[in-house]
Amino acid sequence: MLDTKSSYAIEQQLHFLREIDQLKSVIRKSPLIDQSRRENSAEHSWHLAMYAFILKDRSDKEINIDRVIKMLLIHDIVEIDAGDHPIHETTDNSAQEEAEQQAAERIFGLLPTSQGEELKALWYEFEAAESNDAVFAKSLDRLQPLIHNVATEGGTWVEGKVTHEQVEQRYGSVISGGLRRFGRW
Amino acid sequence: MLDTKSSYAIEQQLHFLREIDQLKSVIRKSPLIDQSRRENSAEHSWHLAMYAFILKDRSDKEINIDRVIKMLLIHDIVEIDAGDHPIHETTDNSAQEEAEQQAAERIFGLLPTSQGEELKALWYEFEAAESNDAVFAKSLDRLQPLIHNVATEGGTWVEGKVTHEQVEQRYGSVISGGLRRFGRW
Ligand SMILES: [Ca+2]
Repeated sequence: MLDTKSSYAIEQQLHFLREIDQLKSVIRKSPLIDQSRRENSAEHSWHLAMYAFILKDRSDKEINIDRVIKMLLIHDIVEIDAGDHPIHETTDNSAQEEAEQQAAERIFGLLPTSQGEELKALWYEFEAAESNDAVFAKSLDRLQPLIHNVATEGGTWVEGKVTHEQVEQRYGSVISGGLRRFGRW
Repeated sequence: MLDTKSSYAIEQQLHFLREIDQLKSVIRKSPLIDQSRRENSAEHSWHLAMYAFILKDRSDKEINIDRVIKMLLIHDIVEIDAGDHPIHETTDNSAQEEAEQQAAERIFGLLPTSQGEELKALWYEFEAAESNDAVFAKSLDRLQPLIHNVATEGGTWVEGKVTHEQVEQRYGSVISGGLRRFGRW
């Protein structure tokens, strides 16, 4: 990756790093746990990376946690151009896919070529949801809003009073593939 | 780390993951680049992890980028209890240090023991700023606000018009140790 060490490369890298500041202004549907406001996609990406770090031993399959963390750090960057569209709400999935791919080309394309290709490949791998790392990352992306949803739900999830059964009952059926079944936890 | 696989461990881990949601409500002095609002410490942590990922080849010394990323993901979590206090503004540094150490004990202490100790050690390593990984992480923590400050400064940093000389002039003297000197970029 010699092209990341050139003098022009630093300008490309800093441009990219400034550009992605905009992910902090992409607002998701989900609120913070204290319900003070809705979550943005940058802080969501941080939280998911933390989910991966903490729950790394929970994957069914063998994973490379460092790749999973990087995947989650970049997984929503395309939303800067394409917006946050939960799958089930998208009326035209292929148009959305197209918009996200164009976003990936433009935004990762700001980087030195070899580095841009590396990040694009990681993002496409996440999207494909086939590799062990991507399956685990996707599972966490589904798990986090559920956890937070229960935590904000009229206080029924009271700190320290969550039982193993409640967790299993609420999440057991929705989380599949990447995370160990709650029944085995 | 057998204790991270037990049935009680999942409750501790989810408790920790819900607890750190509060980092999204710790507000820093620095604004977003578009100046629409001030940055919070969770999205700041995401951005710094991205800085590390993108600038990993810029370290003077040999680093383990995966450790640096994890260090940056957790480096501000103590602020949930201790607040965001830039060093130069703190009137009583030892009281602040004490508050941060108590925060580390409490918050990382929510995790299963072995995992909590692992995160605490990583945080203490960052604070000590002695290992190569910590020096690089600290350099990025200093670099990011400067980059953003210039980017927001009355539009003088115009997209695509930043010269190598401008970068060097502005940051050359402030970034030391962890990052290659700009003169050598
Ligand atoms: Ca910081």
